[in-house]
Amino acid sequence: MATARPLAPPVELKAHIEMLHEEALRAFNNRDLEKLVSFYAPDAMVMPPNQVPAAGLNAIRELYTEAFEMGFSNFQFEMTRVVPSNELVATSGTYTIDLKTPSDIIHDRGKFVAVYQVMKNGAWKVLFDIWNSDLPPVTMTMK
Amino acid sequence: MATARPLAPPVELKAHIEMLHEEALRAFNNRDLEKLVSFYAPDAMVMPPNQVPAAGLNAIRELYTEAFEMGFSNFQFEMTRVVPSNELVATSGTYTIDLKTPSDIIHDRGKFVAVYQVMKNGAWKVLFDIWNSDLPPVTMTMK
Repeated sequence: MATARPLAPPVELKAHIEMLHEEALRAFNNRDLEKLVSFYAPDAMVMPPNQVPAAGLNAIRELYTEAFEMGFSNFQFEMTRVVPSNELVATSGTYTIDLKTPSDIIHDRGKFVAVYQVMKNGAWKVLFDIWNSDLPPVTMTMK
Repeated sequence: MATARPLAPPVELKAHIEMLHEEALRAFNNRDLEKLVSFYAPDAMVMPPNQVPAAGLNAIRELYTEAFEMGFSNFQFEMTRVVPSNELVATSGTYTIDLKTPSDIIHDRGKFVAVYQVMKNGAWKVLFDIWNSDLPPVTMTMK
């Protein structure tokens, strides 16, 4: 994995963040839990809809363990905005994901915000990660 | 309203962002649409659950017009994290809100991320605003 360059020109930093996001996506789809958790800062918060937030790496590990057990898969996203600063990079975009149930596959789509923060060692890690669905609640729960 | 101080010490910037957030909360609860919209950057995105995002000030104005018509009120929040950088401030916290229906009042609670960006004139405006509920979907839709 490339090292972070907090003082790099914005274009290079944007490309670096996009690469990290793609790697995290791959880790999710490969169900590589430890790799996935490694993208988060020690005090990161992951905020899924209709659940309490997961604060810190242990809680984040539990959250994704449950997500894998529930059958979430085929996660895709498009990062449409990447806004850099010296110590934070704010990103947003859209996602699609599938939830396999015993009888069906539920497709969800929505949007996310992920904020990256530079660590003391120069690496960029996810500090805040939040998303929600574009679809009405019943579509997701009743289909 | 105080002017922004992008080069101020972090403590002062944090207090300024907290003040802006409190003012936006007051504007929402007073149903002061134009005041509320004035807290957002021209290219801001507001991302409510179970709806498509509102991009830009016209779409944000429409979103809050609909929210007021739907009977959302008594919005409260606690900003628990404020992380500054030179051009962005990332915040997160928890919220509670009421939705008045003809027969009942539905209480929702959840979490949010709001990212502030400094404008060319030094003012800090909300760039990304996203939240979701801690409650199961059925609690919100069926009660």
